[in-house]
Amino acid sequence: MPRFRALLLIASLSLPSPLLSADEIALVGYSPSSSQTEREWEAKFRAIPDPANIREFMRRLSARPHHVGSPYDKDNAAWILARFKEWGFDAHIETFDVLFPTPKVRLLEMVEPAKFTAKLDEPALAVDPTSNQKSEQLPTYNAYSIDGDVVAPLVFVNYGLPEDYEKLDRLGISVKGMIVIAKYYHSWRGVKAKVAAEHGAIGCLIYSEPQDDGYTPDNVFPLGPMRNPEGVQRGSVMDFASSSPGDPLTPGVGATPDAKRLPLKEAKSITKIPVLPISYGDAQPLLAKLAGPMAPAEWRGSLPISYHVGPGPAKVHLKVEFNWDIKPVYDVIAKIPGSSAPEQWIIRGNHHDAWVNGAEDPVSGQSALLEEARAFGELLRQGWKPHRTIIYAAWDGEEPMLLGSTEWAEAHADDLRLHAAVYINTDSNDRGLLSLEGSHSLEQFINAVARDVEDPETKLTVWQRLQLSKIAQAKSAEERKELRQRADLRIGALGSGTDYTAFIDHLGIASLNLEYGGEDEQGIYHSIYDDFYWYTHFSDTDFVYGRAMAQTGGTSVMRLADAEVLPFDFVDFADTVQKYTEELERLLADRQEAIRERNQQLDEGVFKATLDPRRPTLPPPREDVPPHLNFAPLRNACDSLARSAEHYRQALSHRQAALSEVSAAWLRALNQMLIESERTLTNDDGLPRRPWYKNLLEAPGVYTGYEPKTIPGVREGIEQKRYGEAEQEIVRVAKALEAESSLIESAAQTLEQPTR
Amino acid sequence: MPRFRALLLIASLSLPSPLLSADEIALVGYSPSSSQTEREWEAKFRAIPDPANIREFMRRLSARPHHVGSPYDKDNAAWILARFKEWGFDAHIETFDVLFPTPKVRLLEMVEPAKFTAKLDEPALAVDPTSNQKSEQLPTYNAYSIDGDVVAPLVFVNYGLPEDYEKLDRLGISVKGMIVIAKYYHSWRGVKAKVAAEHGAIGCLIYSEPQDDGYTPDNVFPLGPMRNPEGVQRGSVMDFASSSPGDPLTPGVGATPDAKRLPLKEAKSITKIPVLPISYGDAQPLLAKLAGPMAPAEWRGSLPISYHVGPGPAKVHLKVEFNWDIKPVYDVIAKIPGSSAPEQWIIRGNHHDAWVNGAEDPVSGQSALLEEARAFGELLRQGWKPHRTIIYAAWDGEEPMLLGSTEWAEAHADDLRLHAAVYINTDSNDRGLLSLEGSHSLEQFINAVARDVEDPETKLTVWQRLQLSKIAQAKSAEERKELRQRADLRIGALGSGTDYTAFIDHLGIASLNLEYGGEDEQGIYHSIYDDFYWYTHFSDTDFVYGRAMAQTGGTSVMRLADAEVLPFDFVDFADTVQKYTEELERLLADRQEAIRERNQQLDEGVFKATLDPRRPTLPPPREDVPPHLNFAPLRNACDSLARSAEHYRQALSHRQAALSEVSAAWLRALNQMLIESERTLTNDDGLPRRPWYKNLLEAPGVYTGYEPKTIPGVREGIEQKRYGEAEQEIVRVAKALEAESSLIESAAQTLEQPTR
Repeated sequence: MPRFRALLLIASLSLPSPLLSADEIALVGYSPSSSQTEREWEAKFRAIPDPANIREFMRRLSARPHHVGSPYDKDNAAWILARFKEWGFDAHIETFDVLFPTPKVRLLEMVEPAKFTAKLDEPALAVDPTSNQKSEQLPTYNAYSIDGDVVAPLVFVNYGLPEDYEKLDRLGISVKGMIVIAKYYHSWRGVKAKVAAEHGAIGCLIYSEPQDDGYTPDNVFPLGPMRNPEGVQRGSVMDFASSSPGDPLTPGVGATPDAKRLPLKEAKSITKIPVLPISYGDAQPLLAKLAGPMAPAEWRGSLPISYHVGPGPAKVHLKVEFNWDIKPVYDVIAKIPGSSAPEQWIIRGNHHDAWVNGAEDPVSGQSALLEEARAFGELLRQGWKPHRTIIYAAWDGEEPMLLGSTEWAEAHADDLRLHAAVYINTDSNDRGLLSLEGSHSLEQFINAVARDVEDPETKLTVWQRLQLSKIAQAKSAEERKELRQRADLRIGALGSGTDYTAFIDHLGIASLNLEYGGEDEQGIYHSIYDDFYWYTHFSDTDFVYGRAMAQTGGTSVMRLADAEVLPFDFVDFADTVQKYTEELERLLADRQEAIRERNQQLDEGVFKATLDPRRPTLPPPREDVPPHLNFAPLRNACDSLARSAEHYRQALSHRQAALSEVSAAWLRALNQMLIESERTLTNDDGLPRRPWYKNLLEAPGVYTGYEPKTIPGVREGIEQKRYGEAEQEIVRVAKALEAESSLIESAAQTLEQPTR
Repeated sequence: MPRFRALLLIASLSLPSPLLSADEIALVGYSPSSSQTEREWEAKFRAIPDPANIREFMRRLSARPHHVGSPYDKDNAAWILARFKEWGFDAHIETFDVLFPTPKVRLLEMVEPAKFTAKLDEPALAVDPTSNQKSEQLPTYNAYSIDGDVVAPLVFVNYGLPEDYEKLDRLGISVKGMIVIAKYYHSWRGVKAKVAAEHGAIGCLIYSEPQDDGYTPDNVFPLGPMRNPEGVQRGSVMDFASSSPGDPLTPGVGATPDAKRLPLKEAKSITKIPVLPISYGDAQPLLAKLAGPMAPAEWRGSLPISYHVGPGPAKVHLKVEFNWDIKPVYDVIAKIPGSSAPEQWIIRGNHHDAWVNGAEDPVSGQSALLEEARAFGELLRQGWKPHRTIIYAAWDGEEPMLLGSTEWAEAHADDLRLHAAVYINTDSNDRGLLSLEGSHSLEQFINAVARDVEDPETKLTVWQRLQLSKIAQAKSAEERKELRQRADLRIGALGSGTDYTAFIDHLGIASLNLEYGGEDEQGIYHSIYDDFYWYTHFSDTDFVYGRAMAQTGGTSVMRLADAEVLPFDFVDFADTVQKYTEELERLLADRQEAIRERNQQLDEGVFKATLDPRRPTLPPPREDVPPHLNFAPLRNACDSLARSAEHYRQALSHRQAALSEVSAAWLRALNQMLIESERTLTNDDGLPRRPWYKNLLEAPGVYTGYEPKTIPGVREGIEQKRYGEAEQEIVRVAKALEAESSLIESAAQTLEQPTR
């Protein structure tokens, strides 16, 4: 079906009829009567969460530093376990033993042309009562940096992205044998270290630029929410995107006591060069002593200096050594067994470990999750019985790199592949708009949930507020038109950086990632100042967005757990895959055009003509124009998908009224097909050069980390100029999508068959 | 003729045939034999200018401060006069008596919440030998600020543009009764004071933001070329764009001794509120004490502070008082009488006054102009005899606001209207690309000149370097295509800010403005550090671009002075007017669409949905969608113009070979029509509310100052929501363009007639 027609159908089918209020239309996957019952239970549920509880949970969990291996991390796990049990869950702690390095030596000094020793210390502030817990705080460092002791001239590399090094090439500057200094943001910090090493750097500093999260966006802490001159962003620099997240010594398997462990030297996800994060107070003296070309205009920040690239004359000595210890992570796992379909699992998780006190990251999300669980305890007492099994997880070790969730997912991979229907993740939570990311088969579902939660500030539904805000931010009339006319708001693809990664990328479990935020600036990320004082002064201070998050997360879990037919839908999915395909074709065409143009400019002498002899630059390299690729298999798969998705939606719609009359076996078979729908997008061989990542439709970018690449085999193939590989990947993805289409078609046919 | 066809014809007619070298094709307006002679003289001319002389001229002219009324200003004028005479020009000084305020009291202090007194002083620097001439330096101030003594809370208004105040409105902040602080740049500084006063402010500070011309673009002086923390941009704040430039007491007439002068109170171009320029060293303590909302992200600079809007708590006391004296300006006027058409004048000017030492502004341009004049002295000795009269002018009083050039133009208005064919202006000159601005009837001409001058750095022609650089900077494939295929590079329209203003805008004399620059950053504009030390360390240090400027200016003058038929061409002109017309239609359509969309968003509740209660903003006002306007008269005029322009070009082309055989009377009649071609674009009534500005095709924008508005009556009518007026202006402009078309057609017919 052509795309336009599909869009029209979406609009006509899913917009509520004007004669029926939203409440009178049966929920997708529910018979009218069970829909009515579900709506009543959901309403009861959403009335329960109380901001005062969320506040109290945050106070308790963030009262002391609670990183992996710390006493309060274990204490929190035990406390969370007790709460789950108190609320009627079948709960336990599951422990894994993982590699978790902590610093032994951290030294950064400028040795030329002036002496300066970096403080590498965040001072306690009198107004902030937890900032003085010095003995329990992890020092500022980057976990999974390799040990190192290097002295070299410094080079400023902007955000340390591959394109930044291309600019350095044009300036004739190599980082070979140098120490680089990069700004935080715009990529996963581990990517900065990886790219620096790939270009021959021997050390990497990462600093928090005040233009990004210091004084430029707002006042600094404790006067305002932003990073003060001493504030440092700790964080993992594990190279997870090109290998795997989780324990570096047990890739692909759970880090159980008897697991086979790699020797440290063979761990692929440790950085190749030493890395250290620093504050802008420590960075300024170093940057001020760089000469060489001025940094390109868009590289410059808001320090009161002229940003030069170097190399040198600043020469720095960087020394880091770590305790390469094995530490326990404590995942708290709590279950409500399903009443009629216990073999189908709805999993809901948020991590509980932090870099220091972590009120915002992750306790804001963890506290809302606990309030959700408490509310379910209430509902259970009132007689609510979910059809499916609900599993709540408070993950440990997310900060070092998704240790707790990854090891659990790897340890239970077989069961999860059989039983897991959906994984719903949260992490931090703040004030503002609901951010929606996830599997596109859940796009319609999560849009519906967002239509049933009230925004605390505007009293609109969170869906309405999001739609109107997107209209306000839209950059074109076309975008606004789609926002006004498409039934569902598009949801983002999943990248990485939080605990859904193993579920969606490794196991092919349909996943969602939810978060409120966007209204408040913040510059305390991964510092000692991310604490209860900060959160209750500068974020969701009255915890009403914590309540909204509990309502959103809980409603999602209930509605998935109670539906007769899992509320997957494939029309938005098909539409989105079509969009990705068009993006890929445009990406290739744009590259072809850009390289053709650049070659022409080389022929015309444009680069010689624009050369300023006082600021010499090298012309860009001449490149072959990329070949055309055969996108037909993807196009055909998109067409199949659009047809089967439409067929499934209509079949479900016709069957919906009769869902209460069908047999359990029929339902189980149908739901099993739906559960398989995300698995079908995976391939056992995984993505090129990273077999742990098995989902062919989305993955964290090898050079982005947090940001997703959709249809990554093809997209990264084009981006990284492996055109032959891209063409093979088109075929592989198309096959998976054709299989997906067949599965959806089978589900549609099942819906049209007699039930017994 | 449709536009496409016109473009194709341009290309086919003006591209040199591959079989002829550029030298073998006759210059436009020249018979083949006179073209050959001219080329020989031009080649001799271009061999003469010597960087060493230009350096020496700069050293002499910038040796001491030489602002209006200063001893060295008079001394320089006398010295320039002596040079012109020495080189064989018929030269004299013409004096006008103009209002030129200088400061008596300058006080800026913060009175709340902390005490701070602004230094308002640029210190001498040991390495910079002229920076210590304290007794002769004008203090830092804004000329034509009214006297004032005000105390009020401070409000930060970004660049002080009208749209900045719209943003303040959305933030619920009024500047009524406040003192505003604005950043320099993005508008004429006088516009900042004007707009502030229109919004009810009672005082205005203007500071140099380090992001714009301080440490962010490069190292600060004396280590680098940029503004140091104490550097201040002096400058005029005369409201010339809505009244007139020149002496405020004698608008429209020359400020001769017997001219009728307005009382000071009636002078329209003095500011309504006191204004003072300050350094970022003085601005930072004030800005740091602003609270209230954060400044919008794009307003923030690179000071190490959080930029808030205010108002207050910073409360400042601003006091300025001036000596409102009448001072003499000394225009040096030097003539080479024409041999065969002395009644047709080619005028070439650059000012000689500066704010302080002014090595860059204006001595770099003045020195090149003098070297041009010296070279003409040589040519005269070798026997060169220009057909037309050449007038060289070294203007005084440009800095306060074009005093010398405007008064001279007003005093000689009648003669100039009869005789002036072209005015060629320069001002500062630096290292880099040739910037081309001017009357579009001279577009083809100046492109041809640029093809005959060599770029000192690349050894390409300056035209080639400019074309290739524009290709490099182009933002779209369409733009690049035009740059590659259009015979001539487009030239910019003239705005204001330098001495062409009275010629093009008031008298309708076809004008050009030329400058090399763009390769070097500079932050010494209008400070004591704009001096010989700075220029010889950071700009065109070996004066090869000074030579290129002398070659460019002189070649232009010669080629205009010697041509049998003035080398005006109207095909580019017609194409450009067509482009302006399309821009106006798009401007209106975009406004209609934007207002329609904004009203829809108001209906939908977008602004309520996006409201952050902690950062309250007001919704924008609902506006009526602008009406459609009748652009048909302009479209029809464009069509006429395209036809007559093409006819003229072909007629000239056919006649060119026979130009040596025509009579002087025939030539005079034809040239007089060409001279009239810019006059025909003027209207005696001038532009709405600013009758001094008589050119209907371009003017400085009332709210931009420096930047031109093309077809200003229509464009500003739409921008300022006077749609009825815009529609009337369409008719008025269309009439002028139809008259222009008739004139061109007559000229074409003259070319086709027998010559006697």
